[in-house]
Formats: sequence, structure tokens, C-alpha cells
Amino acid sequence: MVKGQGSLFGPDAEEESEGVSKKRRSKKANDGSETAKPSRGSGGSRKTAEAMAKSQREISVSEFFTKNRHLLGFDNPRKALLTAVKEAVDNSLDACEEAGILPDLLVEIRQLQGYDDRYTVIVQDNGPGIVKAQVPNIFGKLLYGSKFHRLKQSRGQQGIGISAAGMYGQLTTGNPVRITSRTGKRAKAHYFEVRLNTSKNKPEFTDEERESDFDHGTRVEIDMQAEYRRGMRSVDEYLKQTAVSNPHVRLTWNDPNGNTIVYERGTDELPQETKEIKPHPHGIELGLLIKMLSDSNERTLHAFLQTEFSRVSAKVSHDICDIAKLSTRAHPKRIARAEADRLHAALGKVKIMAPPTNCIAPIGEAVLLAGLQKEIKADFYTASTRPPAVYRGNPFIIEAALAYGREGDTMEVTDEGKILTRKKAASHETELLGNADEAIRLVRFANRVPLQHQQSACAITKGVISVAWKNYMLSQPKGALPIGPMVLIVHIASVWVPFTSESKEAIASYPEILKELKLAVQECGRKLATHIRKGKRIATEYMKRDYIATYLPHIGLGLQEILGISDEVRDNDVAILTDVLERTRKV
Amino acid sequence: MVKGQGSLFGPDAEEESEGVSKKRRSKKANDGSETAKPSRGSGGSRKTAEAMAKSQREISVSEFFTKNRHLLGFDNPRKALLTAVKEAVDNSLDACEEAGILPDLLVEIRQLQGYDDRYTVIVQDNGPGIVKAQVPNIFGKLLYGSKFHRLKQSRGQQGIGISAAGMYGQLTTGNPVRITSRTGKRAKAHYFEVRLNTSKNKPEFTDEERESDFDHGTRVEIDMQAEYRRGMRSVDEYLKQTAVSNPHVRLTWNDPNGNTIVYERGTDELPQETKEIKPHPHGIELGLLIKMLSDSNERTLHAFLQTEFSRVSAKVSHDICDIAKLSTRAHPKRIARAEADRLHAALGKVKIMAPPTNCIAPIGEAVLLAGLQKEIKADFYTASTRPPAVYRGNPFIIEAALAYGREGDTMEVTDEGKILTRKKAASHETELLGNADEAIRLVRFANRVPLQHQQSACAITKGVISVAWKNYMLSQPKGALPIGPMVLIVHIASVWVPFTSESKEAIASYPEILKELKLAVQECGRKLATHIRKGKRIATEYMKRDYIATYLPHIGLGLQEILGISDEVRDNDVAILTDVLERTRKV
Repeated sequence: MVKGQGSLFGPDAEEESEGVSKKRRSKKANDGSETAKPSRGSGGSRKTAEAMAKSQREISVSEFFTKNRHLLGFDNPRKALLTAVKEAVDNSLDACEEAGILPDLLVEIRQLQGYDDRYTVIVQDNGPGIVKAQVPNIFGKLLYGSKFHRLKQSRGQQGIGISAAGMYGQLTTGNPVRITSRTGKRAKAHYFEVRLNTSKNKPEFTDEERESDFDHGTRVEIDMQAEYRRGMRSVDEYLKQTAVSNPHVRLTWNDPNGNTIVYERGTDELPQETKEIKPHPHGIELGLLIKMLSDSNERTLHAFLQTEFSRVSAKVSHDICDIAKLSTRAHPKRIARAEADRLHAALGKVKIMAPPTNCIAPIGEAVLLAGLQKEIKADFYTASTRPPAVYRGNPFIIEAALAYGREGDTMEVTDEGKILTRKKAASHETELLGNADEAIRLVRFANRVPLQHQQSACAITKGVISVAWKNYMLSQPKGALPIGPMVLIVHIASVWVPFTSESKEAIASYPEILKELKLAVQECGRKLATHIRKGKRIATEYMKRDYIATYLPHIGLGLQEILGISDEVRDNDVAILTDVLERTRKV
Repeated sequence: MVKGQGSLFGPDAEEESEGVSKKRRSKKANDGSETAKPSRGSGGSRKTAEAMAKSQREISVSEFFTKNRHLLGFDNPRKALLTAVKEAVDNSLDACEEAGILPDLLVEIRQLQGYDDRYTVIVQDNGPGIVKAQVPNIFGKLLYGSKFHRLKQSRGQQGIGISAAGMYGQLTTGNPVRITSRTGKRAKAHYFEVRLNTSKNKPEFTDEERESDFDHGTRVEIDMQAEYRRGMRSVDEYLKQTAVSNPHVRLTWNDPNGNTIVYERGTDELPQETKEIKPHPHGIELGLLIKMLSDSNERTLHAFLQTEFSRVSAKVSHDICDIAKLSTRAHPKRIARAEADRLHAALGKVKIMAPPTNCIAPIGEAVLLAGLQKEIKADFYTASTRPPAVYRGNPFIIEAALAYGREGDTMEVTDEGKILTRKKAASHETELLGNADEAIRLVRFANRVPLQHQQSACAITKGVISVAWKNYMLSQPKGALPIGPMVLIVHIASVWVPFTSESKEAIASYPEILKELKLAVQECGRKLATHIRKGKRIATEYMKRDYIATYLPHIGLGLQEILGISDEVRDNDVAILTDVLERTRKV
């Protein structure tokens, strides 16, 4: 028996505490018959179960997200602008790539006449367009799309993004989303105005045929309350980073001040096409397995296992059934609860090949390094791509790349053997690479999309912090990013990226993901350490050489005084000493 | 015209950069006719708009949250256990309070026989019970409930929590949720087994009449994959904190190891009953206003404004219509878009009383201080409750309370005038109050529910960090919590708490909320500073007294030697000097 105590802050319930009753565990303690009466003074305010039942009702998912629009990235006008652009660009790039078209995008933001705080966001692509019947649902219904139910890497995955942007526009300006879509030269373009009925989560729309100045593609226009400002976490920065992680994209950006920036292609090759895969047996949940069994059209467990999962061969299927003590000829729909439990355990135990990697398209070390080298003049560049791994049945790949140290910087070695990098760089370069005595700059990508908010809540940040950077010659405050003139890029590519919220700003901290993040960053770190150590050796050598040049002549004079030797002998001895010291110095 | 450049990291797009094309803004740049052809080698992989349309479909909200279960707080087995208990307890307390019943809760966790990693969570209350027809929806459907559509403080608000816990249980064990509910002595208890069909977000269930050993109330049992561990962020800690912030609750806690803790009531009074309110005109969104206008049954704008909003009197309504240049007799449903825009602007401009506070029930300074004083032996306690404020039309109140410094600790003043507190406390007390050289302990509550995860992402943490603690005599590392032996409690009570995710672990950073958080904490901080300064004065005095006692006798001896006076005269002079110095010291 333990004493109850009501301790607010104590980590340990066994502590003594006064004035709290002690009570044996008893069923009577809970029938609550004495306290069951309503205790409100007036007595009239007691609500019965029947009264409460009347107010119970379904909540539409749009109502939910209207109230919780910060979950979708529409917390404030500035972030809302970025989120809207991001969702539209993600969709355009996904559509172009799926259709095998090299993307050519226009992004434009215009201030709405007569308003200080309202803008129109326009995103237009040269993709395949959207068939007429789908437009209203795609733009006027939350949780609708083609990417949710498949296992394949894409930027969008939730079926929320673009309709949420439209919903936010409607909420803050009352205006509908305007879509022009054309599926090919022979088809006419269609123009839609779509509103989202939030009570029903259903679109309301008008549409008409229209002339368009493009052969195929989609153009979206959303009016919204917004704030346009450049700098960190701006639309400008997002588009820049997108251009770098997607060198196959041509992007024209018209900002509200009338400036145009064109990001030309770095390559005419589309990224490797990703294939849709079946779930991997490792990490699949029991409930999902039960659902798959009952949904399956296969007639035997043997066929079910081979068809519904990736990497399950006939042999593996036999192994699984053996371990689970089930017949390979059992009918999937007739597997009982206890049997499913055994089957689930067996899936976890059997040795199975790692998941196929053709469902994932990493950015690649070459592209990452090229991006870094183009932007940053640094002493040292390195990159590392991990082999694919699995979390909850979903394959993923982690890539990391870093740039360290400024070209032309001088180095100093402190008394403790630490290296200080003297800043010689121009001020804008300092901003790129960061100061030598500030935290490194971390740039995060998920499925090629730059992540700009919620850095501290992101598994990528946590993974980088969890690395012992002292081993790699960087100082690191407790629980923080390491210190140094360094940019670190980390990319996670997966068939399903587990974001911490619907706004897709940070990655959830699944242990498998954290582990891979750490390994990728450590690989870069080891190469960095080798580089820094080499630099340190050179710096130390220079210091020793300085000592020799400074002190040996004086030692020569001292020797001459003590031994009474000639100037010639003295100079000769000093030369010999210098030679000997130089040789030992080189060790 | 600005040059394009594809800079990955640059904060400034105006920088020069080589090898990037310059291009005039032109419409032609975007018709993409040269690049529109599919570029895949095989040519067979191009997906048309028609092909893509086939895979477009609706995503059920349960499917969405099954994949994203970390959004609901079911990231890992340990957190899942806490989340399930929390959701069930929240519902029980809400139900009891609405029915005017003093809550008497049983919380029990049992290990499931035959499994290391499966537990049964049981929560039973003495509330009003749930009518038969509602049980399946409440426990087997996400986004269903009575609390979402009203503006009134309650613990639950989303209609997701308990059904999500059941869904997680089903996903990890395959077992249904079991509910026993009884609405009164005259009714029989009903027993349900509920499963959630995730493809349809609909319940599937069996039910039967059963005997029960309680007159009225609800009992929920969920089997789930889980991990039971005590310490920080455990079920134990959550229940302790719940007992303190809800002193009207009696709570029996049976842990998996067979221990029972009973938290007895501190009071027999229920918290002030909260009233449902209408939205406040300040901060309401245009889209919502338009929806309210078209949904309203009122026939004039005048009636609409007074009925649908709180704090709008006839006079205020006239003022609003005047500013908006609209007739008070206009029909709400016939207000045009541009008129709604003007009405919206007018709502923001007119002077209106702060929202009513009877929709919110703060914990209260007395209860907060009592909780602190009961648990922590400190030198100083203070609390502060802010007047109600509004964010996005939702009233809220911030309360803060703190305990500082350990009783019996000695104080030291350093050369810089800083105070160090020497630890004298027993080790468990140190854990309660924290070490003098570590960050303060921050305890967060939202609508009386303790928040245990995601501290760094929470607006409460950000608000506390944004305070310049140096003004209040505490040192504070940049961007971090202040340092010192202190516990700080912050509570936000609102009709709608804007959580950063569906798991309700952290508050979103709305500017209005951050501002109030800061003000509440500053109020406590000012009182703390006065206390610390007093302590510092005393410490300085003690130091001066020490100097006097140490050095004056020696000065006496010196004087005697120089002046050749008698012992008697010397002692007399020393006494006079001591007196004089003591008097100046007291200034």
C-alpha cells in the first residue's frame, strides 16, 4: 500500500507527505454513492446524459481545421503566404514529374488593390492539367487526393494542403479560389471558382470554358490576408532552396514589388522516376495487418503474403507461415484474431531483404555538393547518403552534406589546442556560412521540399544535436547545435514522411529515423574531423616554425657568449640546430 | 529587373552571382512550349490528367490519423499510455462537472496476460453516463462530440481524443474498446465492444445489458501496446498534477505493480460553472462572419449583431452599422460581399466591452498558491491572474504562480553582486525546486489539464523565455529559461485552447496569448525581484557586520600603539567606532 499525496512536482511518489489520507484499495471507494448527487447550489444546472446527448454531433474536418488553422501553417499572415505558395508549388512539381514533364513554373504574388494586407498568390505550371470533374474536390475539399493511399515518394501526401490554402483565403477575404486548367492542346481550358463549404467539407463552384495562353497545365489564384517580407523563412528563400534541391525545374518568380527572378534549369533530366511499392513486413502494425487480411481478394495466405507485401518471396512466405504455425493454404479472411497475432509476430521475426529503393529518389550527393559549392566558398565540402532503412514499414533514405570553413581564412591555435578561424570573408559571405563562434546553419529538406519553420521541434535538428561534435573537432553547447563556420544540409526522402503537424514543417522523432540521421551526419563529421585535424597540424607547424625563427638566433648569441666561439661557428651551429628542429617538427 | 541566381542560403537576393541567366519578365517565359513534351526515356511512363484522375479519392479522417498517429500523441508505447489515460480522464471530468457531480475517478493500468508490451487502461467515473445511442459514435468515430461547436471552457474540445485512443488500441492489439455505461439507478447498465472502421470512420459494435456495481457513470477499457515507466512525463506525474489543479476531484490510482494511491478531495466545491458564450466581435474572421450572416435566422442586421455576438448592445450595434455604412434593418442573408467586408472592418473598429468571463474558470491564485505551498518549502511564493483577453474572438485568461528559494538556504553575494544560493536541502527537495544553477522548473496547464510533452514548442515556454529575467534578479542564458531555484506554474484557460497538434501537448504562439503570458509572468517577476533585493540587502548587511567585527579590534590595537592610550580608552574608542559604523551600515 502506498500513501496518496497529491504531489504536484515530485518525481517520486514514495516520498512522505503530511495531511493526505491513506486508504486501502477497495471497490467501495469507487461506487461514489455519497458524492453522486449534484452539488450545484441551484440544482437546476445539472445536465443529464440525455441532455448531453442532444448536443453530440459530427464535426466536419474543415470546421476542425478552420478553428485550428495554425495546424496547417496558417498561424499568421506572413507564414500563411509561404504555406500557400509551398502547397501550390508542391502540387505543380508532383504533377509535372508524374506526367514526365520538365517543370516550368510561374510564381507570382500581387498586392490586392485597395488593401494593405491582402495579396493574390498565383502559381502556374506546365503540367498535365486536371480533368474537369476533379477540380472542385481537389481545391474545395480537405482530405482528398491521389497521394495518400499509395507508398511512393512525393511532395504532397495528405490531400489537405492546397484546399486548406483556399479555405484560408476564403476565411480571410471571402473570395473563392480561381483555377484554370487545360489538359492538352485539343482540349479547351476550364476556369473554375471554388468555395469550400466548411460545414459539409464539400466544394461549391462555378465553371466555364475559357481561352488560355498555355497548351497544358494548371493555374491557381488565391486571394488571402498576408504579409510579404523577405529574409529568413520568406517566399524568396523557399523558392531559392527549391531551385537548388530541384535543379530540373525552371522557375519564374514575380514578387509584389515588380521584380522578376528566373531560376534556370541546372539539368534537363528529371529525377529518377519513383515506383509505388507494397508495405514492407517489418514494422507493420497488427491492426493494419488484420485490415489487409480482411480486405484481401487472395484465397490463400501464401498468395496474400507475396502479393500484399514487398520482399516476400515464396520461401519467405513459407518461413513466415512456419513460424506463425499457420497453413500456407489458410484463407486470409478466415484468419482468427489469435492467429493474426501469431502471423504479426512472425512477420517481425523472419529475415527479409531491405525494402526496394526505387520508391525513393534521393537528391544525390553530386547535386547536394554542387549546390553547396555554387553558393558557398568554403575550405571543405563533403556529402553522405545512407542506405535505405524502414520505420513502421515505410522505407526512407537520409542524405547529409556540409560545407566548412572559409577560403582564405587564417587559423589560430589556442592554448587548449582549439582552432579559431579568423574571419576575413565579406559580410554577405559571413551570413551564408555563419560566424565561427555561432551555431552552424542547418538546412532541412523533406522529399526535396525545404523546411523553414519549427527547426527546434524537428527530428533532423534533434539528430544533429545528438551527435557528439567534440569528436569531430567542433565545440558544442549542451543540447544545442555545434558551433562553427559550417552549413549542414540534411534531406529525408520517404514514401511517407511523418511530419509533426499537417503544416509539414518538422519531422516526427521516430527512433529509426533519428538513428539514420545520426549515422548520416556522423559520416560527414568523420570526414570533417580529418580535414580539421590536417588544418590543425599545419597551424601547429607554422607556430613551431615561428618559435624556431624567433628564438634560435638568441640561443646562438647565448652559446657564443658562453663558449666564446666565432661568429662563423655560431651561425653554423644555428643552421645545424634549425635543420634538426625542422626535421623533428615535421613528424 | 533583378538577376535570378538560385542561391540556396543567401538572405539577400540582390547579391551578384555568376553563371545565372538574366531574363526580362515576359509572358512567353511561361508558356513552356519547348519543355512541355515528356522527357522520360521510355516514353511509356507519362501519366495523363485522365490517368491521374482515377487515383483521386477521398481520405477518411481515421485513415489519415492512423498513418499520422504521432499527431495524436501515440508516437511511442510510453507516450501512448499517457495519452490514453489523459483523454479518458479529461472526458470523465468534463462529464461530471457538466452534470454538477463531484468527480470520483478510478484509473487503473494492468499488464495484459501473456504480453510484455500490452496493457489494459481502465478509467471509470461517477458521471452521468452516456445514452446508449451515442456510445458507438463517441468511442468509434473521430471528430464526433459535443464540445467542438460551442464556446465554453472544457478539457476536451476536438472530438478526437478518446476514439483515437481506441483506434490506437485496435491498431496495436486488434482488440475493441470496451465501455460500460449507466445513466442512473433506474436504468440498466449497457456494455459495448466498439471497433472503428478506419476506411469509413464509422463504429462497428456489439452491445448488451449488464449488471454494474455503480449507479451511474462510465467505465472505459482499452487494450494497447504500451510501456509503463514512472518519473518525468509518466501517468503517475500526470495524475498528481491533475489532482492538484483539480482539488475537487477524488482519484484512485491502481498502478500495474499493484500499488494504490488515493488522492482525496481538497474541497467539496465544484469549480465555478462556465457558461457557453457567443463569439466576441473583436478578432472574428471575415469568412466566419459571412458564414454567420448566411446561417442566421434573424431578419435584421441589428438583431443579428445583438443575438450572434457577445457584448453587442443596441447602441454598439448602431455604432457598427454607422461605421460600416449599412442599414440596421438590412437582411443578414442579403449582405453582399463588399458590405460584409465593411461590416467586418467596423467590428474591429468599434469600442466593445471585454468578453464575459463566466465562460472561463481559472484555477485561482489561492488554489495555485496552496498547491505550491503544500509541495514545496520555498522562501517566497507569489501568484498573479490576468484579466481576460481575446485571440481570434476567443476569450482566455492567463494565470501564473511561482515558488522561489529554499527555506534555510544560506545566501552569498559574489563580486558582481549576484546572489548564490547554497544548497542545504535534502536531495528530493532539490529535485522539486531544481538546483540553484539549473534552469527553473516550468509546469504548464491548459484548462486545468497538465501538459507534459513538447515544452520547447509551447507558447507558454516562449512567453517565459521572452521575459527579461535579469530585471527580476535571475540570470538567463540567451533564448533559454532563467536559472535559479524556482518552480513556475502557468495556466491558460480558454473557451478554445489553440494547441499546436491534435495531441494537445503545446499551445500555439498567437501574439495575443504571448503578450498575456509575458504580462502574467512579469507580474510575478516584479514581486520576486522585490523579494530577492531584500534578501540581497540583508546579505550585504551581514557581510558588512562581519567586516566590523573582524577588523575593528585590530584598528583599536593599532590606535593604542600609535597614540599610547590605555586599554580602557582603546575599548571605549572601539565601541564608539562600532556604534558609528553600525549606524551608517543600516542606511
